[in-house]
Amino acid sequence: MINPSATPERYPYQNEPIWSKSEKVLARTAFDAALGRELHEVIREAKKMASQIKQSSDLWDLERYLTQHRTEIDRKYDYRYSRLTQVFGRLLHEGRLQEEELRGLREDKLKMIFSFAKFLAEEAA
Amino acid sequence: MINPSATPERYPYQNEPIWSKSEKVLARTAFDAALGRELHEVIREAKKMASQIKQSSDLWDLERYLTQHRTEIDRKYDYRYSRLTQVFGRLLHEGRLQEEELRGLREDKLKMIFSFAKFLAEEAA
Repeated sequence: MINPSATPERYPYQNEPIWSKSEKVLARTAFDAALGRELHEVIREAKKMASQIKQSSDLWDLERYLTQHRTEIDRKYDYRYSRLTQVFGRLLHEGRLQEEELRGLREDKLKMIFSFAKFLAEEAA
Repeated sequence: MINPSATPERYPYQNEPIWSKSEKVLARTAFDAALGRELHEVIREAKKMASQIKQSSDLWDLERYLTQHRTEIDRKYDYRYSRLTQVFGRLLHEGRLQEEELRGLREDKLKMIFSFAKFLAEEAA
């Protein structure tokens, strides 16, 4: 077994960066801010859709909208450190997070985040 | 095989009353009226819930409310003549239909409808 103290910047079992305490605070703040903004957007849209309901099909459109966004949010906002660079990459790509909100993360993580955002942008193009 | 024309008041294969043309019109009107009222109630409640959303849990409460009522309405409003006396019995029991809306149905059907409403009332008691 590899001694973890011999490789202080890596978990012993995976090629993943470790997150310092200050990085964790920053990551949590950025994550919560993006999630809060997305929820706020869904709440605003749901209120708008509800206010315009005229018939039953509008009602079930609202239900479908909510189910779809709950599922998407659940899948997207995965706060595991092993997933976080991809999560932030996606949020950057979607414009739900600004680069300056990630300032303070180490270079290795920013590189992974930007690289994943770039991958998604190229995929979408 | 039994000749249907020899048993004009019954389907040949089941102990079910047949519905005359005027009864079908009446049944459809009563059915649609009850469904319309229930949908109107759900729409009103959904609009109220949406207007009061403050946080994400309120949003998912609304989703759950809609899913639950869509499922319940789908199950309850079953317009098959083989099911209709029970459907009307339930709607009477729930106060979603008034007896006078069924006036014009033949006595055999009214008896089955009232009997099922009574059964549900006793079950609930």
